[in-house]
Amino acid sequence: MTYCVGLLLDAGLVMLSDTRTNAGVDNISVFGKTFVHETPGERALALLTAGNLAVTQAVWNRLQEGVKLDGQLLTLGSAENMFRAAQLVGAAVREVFATDGPGLRDHGLGFDVSILLGGQIGTAPPRLFLVYAAGNFIEATADTPFLQIGEHKYGKPILDRVLSPATPLADGVTLALISMDSTLRSNLTVGLPIDLTVIRRDALAVSLRRRITEEDAYFAFLRQRWSESLREAYQALPRPDWLD
Amino acid sequence: MTYCVGLLLDAGLVMLSDTRTNAGVDNISVFGKTFVHETPGERALALLTAGNLAVTQAVWNRLQEGVKLDGQLLTLGSAENMFRAAQLVGAAVREVFATDGPGLRDHGLGFDVSILLGGQIGTAPPRLFLVYAAGNFIEATADTPFLQIGEHKYGKPILDRVLSPATPLADGVTLALISMDSTLRSNLTVGLPIDLTVIRRDALAVSLRRRITEEDAYFAFLRQRWSESLREAYQALPRPDWLD
Repeated sequence: MTYCVGLLLDAGLVMLSDTRTNAGVDNISVFGKTFVHETPGERALALLTAGNLAVTQAVWNRLQEGVKLDGQLLTLGSAENMFRAAQLVGAAVREVFATDGPGLRDHGLGFDVSILLGGQIGTAPPRLFLVYAAGNFIEATADTPFLQIGEHKYGKPILDRVLSPATPLADGVTLALISMDSTLRSNLTVGLPIDLTVIRRDALAVSLRRRITEEDAYFAFLRQRWSESLREAYQALPRPDWLD
Repeated sequence: MTYCVGLLLDAGLVMLSDTRTNAGVDNISVFGKTFVHETPGERALALLTAGNLAVTQAVWNRLQEGVKLDGQLLTLGSAENMFRAAQLVGAAVREVFATDGPGLRDHGLGFDVSILLGGQIGTAPPRLFLVYAAGNFIEATADTPFLQIGEHKYGKPILDRVLSPATPLADGVTLALISMDSTLRSNLTVGLPIDLTVIRRDALAVSLRRRITEEDAYFAFLRQRWSESLREAYQALPRPDWLD
């Protein structure tokens, strides 16, 4: 499995993915699921993937080579805006489905892929999309300024409670890491290291790419402190007065 | 959907279920999913159900009427110990599968049921089981002193972090309610009111049954305070020093 989360904040985008892939529980590997395209001064995009690794890697390769969209061969470097970029990712997914879908079906396997695409192109505001296996997509809005793919449930409550578009970027990073920590603790198929990408609004460049391992001092502290905080918060709650 | 959780503590059992059933999102009803059998001074058992409502109600009805197990017609009132009671629930599930399974299959529907069974019979310690649709079951142990059915992921992180067999009963009630709150907030198919059942060790009676609605002052306070606590805990965390 996989857990990826993208936050669309007024201050920019925070994108976080784990790196665990598994074919059964006895074949576990580390594969990056974050792919970045950057043309400094013009555009910065990050693509986070969940699902069949052969499918997601094929999608990324096709996006490098160029995908036909309305008669034009486009890449993430040439799509004129974020909506076109999302359409392009959808078109790449459909191309892979056309070539690999029948073979997967012959072997009783589903065509399993979902992709977060976040970024900014030119002076338009940053946008964040979730592209489905069918190639269609939804977009994050101010009402729900985050999107998740993969094993999303464990890490959702904290985002539901706290996140808003006004959340500062550093706070967003902390929140995404807490959300990932809840998932790591409760589901073994999501694993360290994790890949963090930050794209500040109007930077038109990737502001930060960081691979966070077991040794990362901040994340280690965060995990321990968050656990303690939850325990303390729960200890501080009153107990029901109607019990006995 | 459904969320039910059972805690097996040294001090006894805490069992909590929601009451929402839905056939599609436009047909939502309130049905109790907690069923209790009590013979004061001898035994107290609680059964929490998830899955197809026709199936779970049929299982409970068969348990009232008596189910054949190794040639004997038994009920939850006559099973000699908790292991036999769990076998009995499994046998009831298999009986319902035998009668209703083919009809469900004809209509493209799965046979969807899972059941938590907790209780104490006589002087043996309380036990907690999870019975599957196949009629087989697992038991909670000191390593993992809780079992969940239905929409279990949202409410699992807090239990993973805090619960142990030594957790006092009142603390267990608070924890179960927090776990339910996380689920209620993130998944609309789990809904209020919720049904709480407490069986103290060696009481051999149901110590508490309480239906908790929107109006329950303790639960309302708990939900609000827990949200605030999470927000405060997250606010108190340091932010990464490697960002910018």
